[in-house]
Amino acid sequence: MEKFTLIGKNMKRIDTAAKATGEAIFSADLTLPRMLIGKALRSPYPHARIVAIDTSKAERLPGVKAVITAQDMCGDKWGVFRYTQDQQFLPTEKVRYMGEEVAAVAAIDEDTALQALKLIDVQYEALPSVFTIDDAIAAGAPQLHDAYPNNINVHVKIDVGDIEKGFNESYLVREDTFSAPEDAYFQGEPYAVVAQFDQAGNLEIWMPNAGPHMKAKPLSNVLKIPLNKVRVRKITIGGAFGGRSEISPADVICAFLARKAHRPVKIVYTREENTVATRQAHALVTKIKTGVDREGKVLARDITCHMDGGAYSSTGPIATSVPFLCMEQAYRMDNVRYNGYRILTNKPIRGMYRVHGRAFACGIDIQLDMIGAALGIDPLTMRLRNARQTGDYTPTKSYVASCGMTESIVKAGEKSGWKEKFGKLPPYHGIGIGCNSVQTGFPMGIRGGSQAFIKLNEDGGITVITGIVDNGQGNDNMVVQIAAEELGLTPDDVQLISADTEVTPSDPGSYAMCETFIGGNAVRLAAQDVKKKLFRIVAGEFGIGVDNLTARDRKIFVTENPEKSMSIAKAVRIALSRNESISGEGSYWPNVDPKREWVKNPYGQLSETFSFGTVIAEVKVDPETGQVEVLEVTAAQDVGFALNPQVIEGQFEGGVAMGGQGGMLSEFLQWHEGRVLNPTQFGYLVPLAIDMPKINNIIVETIDPNGPYGAKEAGMSVAMSAAQAYCGAISNAVGVYFHDYPITPDKIVKAIEEKKQKENAEVPG
Amino acid sequence: MEKFTLIGKNMKRIDTAAKATGEAIFSADLTLPRMLIGKALRSPYPHARIVAIDTSKAERLPGVKAVITAQDMCGDKWGVFRYTQDQQFLPTEKVRYMGEEVAAVAAIDEDTALQALKLIDVQYEALPSVFTIDDAIAAGAPQLHDAYPNNINVHVKIDVGDIEKGFNESYLVREDTFSAPEDAYFQGEPYAVVAQFDQAGNLEIWMPNAGPHMKAKPLSNVLKIPLNKVRVRKITIGGAFGGRSEISPADVICAFLARKAHRPVKIVYTREENTVATRQAHALVTKIKTGVDREGKVLARDITCHMDGGAYSSTGPIATSVPFLCMEQAYRMDNVRYNGYRILTNKPIRGMYRVHGRAFACGIDIQLDMIGAALGIDPLTMRLRNARQTGDYTPTKSYVASCGMTESIVKAGEKSGWKEKFGKLPPYHGIGIGCNSVQTGFPMGIRGGSQAFIKLNEDGGITVITGIVDNGQGNDNMVVQIAAEELGLTPDDVQLISADTEVTPSDPGSYAMCETFIGGNAVRLAAQDVKKKLFRIVAGEFGIGVDNLTARDRKIFVTENPEKSMSIAKAVRIALSRNESISGEGSYWPNVDPKREWVKNPYGQLSETFSFGTVIAEVKVDPETGQVEVLEVTAAQDVGFALNPQVIEGQFEGGVAMGGQGGMLSEFLQWHEGRVLNPTQFGYLVPLAIDMPKINNIIVETIDPNGPYGAKEAGMSVAMSAAQAYCGAISNAVGVYFHDYPITPDKIVKAIEEKKQKENAEVPG
Repeated sequence: MEKFTLIGKNMKRIDTAAKATGEAIFSADLTLPRMLIGKALRSPYPHARIVAIDTSKAERLPGVKAVITAQDMCGDKWGVFRYTQDQQFLPTEKVRYMGEEVAAVAAIDEDTALQALKLIDVQYEALPSVFTIDDAIAAGAPQLHDAYPNNINVHVKIDVGDIEKGFNESYLVREDTFSAPEDAYFQGEPYAVVAQFDQAGNLEIWMPNAGPHMKAKPLSNVLKIPLNKVRVRKITIGGAFGGRSEISPADVICAFLARKAHRPVKIVYTREENTVATRQAHALVTKIKTGVDREGKVLARDITCHMDGGAYSSTGPIATSVPFLCMEQAYRMDNVRYNGYRILTNKPIRGMYRVHGRAFACGIDIQLDMIGAALGIDPLTMRLRNARQTGDYTPTKSYVASCGMTESIVKAGEKSGWKEKFGKLPPYHGIGIGCNSVQTGFPMGIRGGSQAFIKLNEDGGITVITGIVDNGQGNDNMVVQIAAEELGLTPDDVQLISADTEVTPSDPGSYAMCETFIGGNAVRLAAQDVKKKLFRIVAGEFGIGVDNLTARDRKIFVTENPEKSMSIAKAVRIALSRNESISGEGSYWPNVDPKREWVKNPYGQLSETFSFGTVIAEVKVDPETGQVEVLEVTAAQDVGFALNPQVIEGQFEGGVAMGGQGGMLSEFLQWHEGRVLNPTQFGYLVPLAIDMPKINNIIVETIDPNGPYGAKEAGMSVAMSAAQAYCGAISNAVGVYFHDYPITPDKIVKAIEEKKQKENAEVPG
Repeated sequence: MEKFTLIGKNMKRIDTAAKATGEAIFSADLTLPRMLIGKALRSPYPHARIVAIDTSKAERLPGVKAVITAQDMCGDKWGVFRYTQDQQFLPTEKVRYMGEEVAAVAAIDEDTALQALKLIDVQYEALPSVFTIDDAIAAGAPQLHDAYPNNINVHVKIDVGDIEKGFNESYLVREDTFSAPEDAYFQGEPYAVVAQFDQAGNLEIWMPNAGPHMKAKPLSNVLKIPLNKVRVRKITIGGAFGGRSEISPADVICAFLARKAHRPVKIVYTREENTVATRQAHALVTKIKTGVDREGKVLARDITCHMDGGAYSSTGPIATSVPFLCMEQAYRMDNVRYNGYRILTNKPIRGMYRVHGRAFACGIDIQLDMIGAALGIDPLTMRLRNARQTGDYTPTKSYVASCGMTESIVKAGEKSGWKEKFGKLPPYHGIGIGCNSVQTGFPMGIRGGSQAFIKLNEDGGITVITGIVDNGQGNDNMVVQIAAEELGLTPDDVQLISADTEVTPSDPGSYAMCETFIGGNAVRLAAQDVKKKLFRIVAGEFGIGVDNLTARDRKIFVTENPEKSMSIAKAVRIALSRNESISGEGSYWPNVDPKREWVKNPYGQLSETFSFGTVIAEVKVDPETGQVEVLEVTAAQDVGFALNPQVIEGQFEGGVAMGGQGGMLSEFLQWHEGRVLNPTQFGYLVPLAIDMPKINNIIVETIDPNGPYGAKEAGMSVAMSAAQAYCGAISNAVGVYFHDYPITPDKIVKAIEEKKQKENAEVPG
């Protein structure tokens, strides 16, 4: 008999039918009786003092039901940390980026709301602005916030081992600088919120989110109502990628409008607003100095990273650590120094991102290639020699309980034909490799654990109640699969109630794909709790011990004698006839160091587990046009255990699309004096299905000792490694190491030209 | 320091604002996108064979989205018990009452739906009908169901002690027959249902109910989908009174229409449909033979009761027991025989009712008055001599753990000035007394227990999750009050999630006011579970034992040293910082005999507790018009413990309105050959606020050993006793004992005339 009936096998996602038929309701689809349409007035200045706001004309416009300004919000400032509380959702004194919310209206329809916005008279006094990291930290630069001298928002400092000794002992030392502009999440679903208040002051709110409880807390704070009066409700979510992690001004504005108008309010962002007024990814400049021994093993590394954070902290301070943490997990670094600076500029706010730090990760990786080239060591071997291993501690003191880094490198190498290809491909053909890692079992904020309830019915069906949110990756499916497996049921026997802050228990959210590890463990424990109770009933009826029973096929049977069985439905009815109900509870808190913090104390166990991925990409470059044709991508990742291979492969492919195909070839935001020039899909080039190359998926399993059935995150390590692999492959094809990302056709053509000029110059005579 | 901060005190109901402002959404107010309007085609015959149904014309009418007949329902029959499964929600072979559902349509609006009904061609073959109990049991009567020979649906037989010996030893024996026609619930909210299915075959349904789980089970059965795919959702409910206890054809029809149309469907009953096609109360004929000793103590009682059940079983078989059970609880009856027959007629279906059996209860009580008059014992003393006492067993073997019957009689007597008034009032003035009891801690069906969860937030607020339903009596309030009291919070600190079959745990429902006893206990246990966990945290911090702590004012303090305290919010945050969440669970199953059953085995512990009430009414009758002016009513009830006196008084007053003012003065259904002649408020006279007399409320507390804080049911014992008191008072005023109820002006005038004629005849001429 197989060990499992459901897990480890492909299972059709439970949300497929609803999404395919359009039945699934996203926030923008939601319509409530008497609902108004909300719109925000946005600053036309990147930096300006607000002298006066006159909303009287807008208020008098028929159909306008509420107008709000900073006055309605008591001047409160929000931030993820106590020391980064710098953002007013409607500012009182000044605006700090073009597109910042200044006022908002709720009206009976969109036309009226837009007309009302035009009637709001805001007097600004323009202030000098800064738009680049260099300008922002230059002496005498305009300052965005009093609290952040020189516009330095946060400084993360990590210093481990003896870096000077490491460099002194190095056989070769290289120093390079890498850079990349901002990229955008470009979720399928532009941001949308619906909010309503009842007489008793209870807020119901629907919006895309990566953790409903993480939305509820700031809403509770800023609305000054208790947490249990904020109900963030379940809704279908069209993608997150890190960009739905935190409170959005739209959430707060929508709630304030609804409270003031005494009617439900819906705000739906335009694509432009979704790009400008929700968080996007940071621009980075990273200086990396690496020293290695003769075998290419890294002995010392000194990294300085400057990130363009835009106008406010938001979740950016976390993002200041993450690129470093991912790389310190992927590669051993015994002597390392990291100085990460987040710099404020008069641009929209930057936050967490699924593919953290292109310039950082690609820099670390491409520099390994350069060093390898100098030492005559191929990139794959360079990575094997530096790969993280099970049982290691990372520089910031996380124990690594399971690690498939090496296996993912070896398997990706074999599948891609690395040995046969590297250095042997025709001109303008190239192959590249990237490795990355992600923390996949860590809590966010004070509610870091997940709890699940399971109820049983007398027909043997169950209902799982959990705070886990699915924002596209298939978490709902994961929950159903685990609960059904554990209790010997089919997915159809499981009803799911999830992601509603009031009806479901707390859960930390789907950040960094922690839901499988944290939430999945909680669901499994709840199912085991239920199973234990069922077994007790059946064991009593059969007069045997509970250890001799197995749950499968909706039955509980004697393991040694499978003919002897009782249906789960019957066991429940027996319990009920004895005046007992059957329900179960499970809680899981990841085993991490509660004192560790993202900025101020980045030491201690960060996450209970980590995923590790390798991507190898093979490309062909057209030297005339600079166009890159991706011939084949091989994505290998240590997912711990593959609960649902089909979903994991989808995550891998999505990762390649996001990190590689989009992130390294075409996606970046263009600017003019703080204005985004390409906020829509007509200028910001997100790859389409037709753009995608052939992808080989390799699932590496390490059976994490603490993951549910050994599982951990799936796909994010691939997304990040893909950028690095694409970078390496193009560099390999062109024969030039690129330092600035994404590697767009113009950069390729220019690099080829420069290389030719250089080669010509070197040719004597 | 007072023992309690909230309970035992008046607390404003949490639903008041929403109901007063119209914010509260009842099922009929609910509007869903793409929602259709459903309508049922009803039989114009009281009894007829269905020869053929042609729906083709209706189906072709533009705007009609679904038409259903019996064919869509597989011929399934429903019943509360296995042996009473006799009702098809759309019948295949014949209709058995005028108004029975035959087919149904869902269309884009009401006009189209009504037009479509007219296009459905049903060919009937009329059958002979029976409309009265006597006709139905007569030899050769038309038979409604093959399964019930002689139209006897059920026969409840109880025989305790030695009745013959009792009669033989009696000093006085009387036999009387009492009767009453049907009365209607006349809820403020006519029946309404909204149903929708999703792609995955999950049903969401909203309707008035007295227990959402009790609705879900039959829907699961008849729709042939698992229980966890039936989600009966929370909605505001406008009264139940026993009439929202079971599945309604409207629920089933609405769900079938929604499934067939693939769109949401709403059915809203007209007032006529609410009276005819939802359950109402039985007509009764009761023969009572009572034997007493010289002191008026009952030695033997033989009761035969015939109830007109209408066309199907429904919950009627339960109602065949209830009038007897209430009276056996109120008064001691050591030697008693009860034969209860439920008879089927071609009239609408009868079910459970808040004021069970006017003819039964008034008969028992007014006969005591007659016997007392013969013995020279006043009615109040007659009741004291026969009153149930704590520690008794009822004839059907229920132990009575707490009983305030005597105290309620004594206190009502004192307050009403009984001693000064009885026998001393001017002509056509009268005073009367009635006593009754109700089982208030018993399970309905297999899911007889209640479970509650409580979640704590880091700001110290809580959310209570319970299956308890509030259908007007204030159960939501009761839950909030108990949870807040137990944890030392204010009602505003408590959020309530309730009465939704999927998001809340199971609960037996609000039948016979069991929610306070069963659900209230579960909520209290859940709160105590939470409190224990909080105390453990605080005790650890303070270095003291958990037994030395008290929760009050949102704090936990050292009982002996109240200055030393910690806020609950802080205790939660300490727990969270230790990677523990704080939540609690509580379950309560009433301690009853699971083998006891309503019809087939009415012996064993019926209910864990019982309430006891006395009502005394004082009236003035206009001998010319027969109009009754109620001068004053005194309502006393043993509620165990008064959790919220204000709500209890409201329940007492509602009970007097329903049982006395309406039930004994004006409310009854009028018939012509199976047709209800007065289905609306223009013919069926429900008392208005302006009709109500002065009411003295007396709360008697016995602190039930098992109730939450000693509490049990409040109001139902008053509702029933009120009918009896009004009957006694009018009889006392007129000088004639009435045998047929309600006592309408025409009956009074006739009684006065007959009495005068009799007196004139007796006067020697």
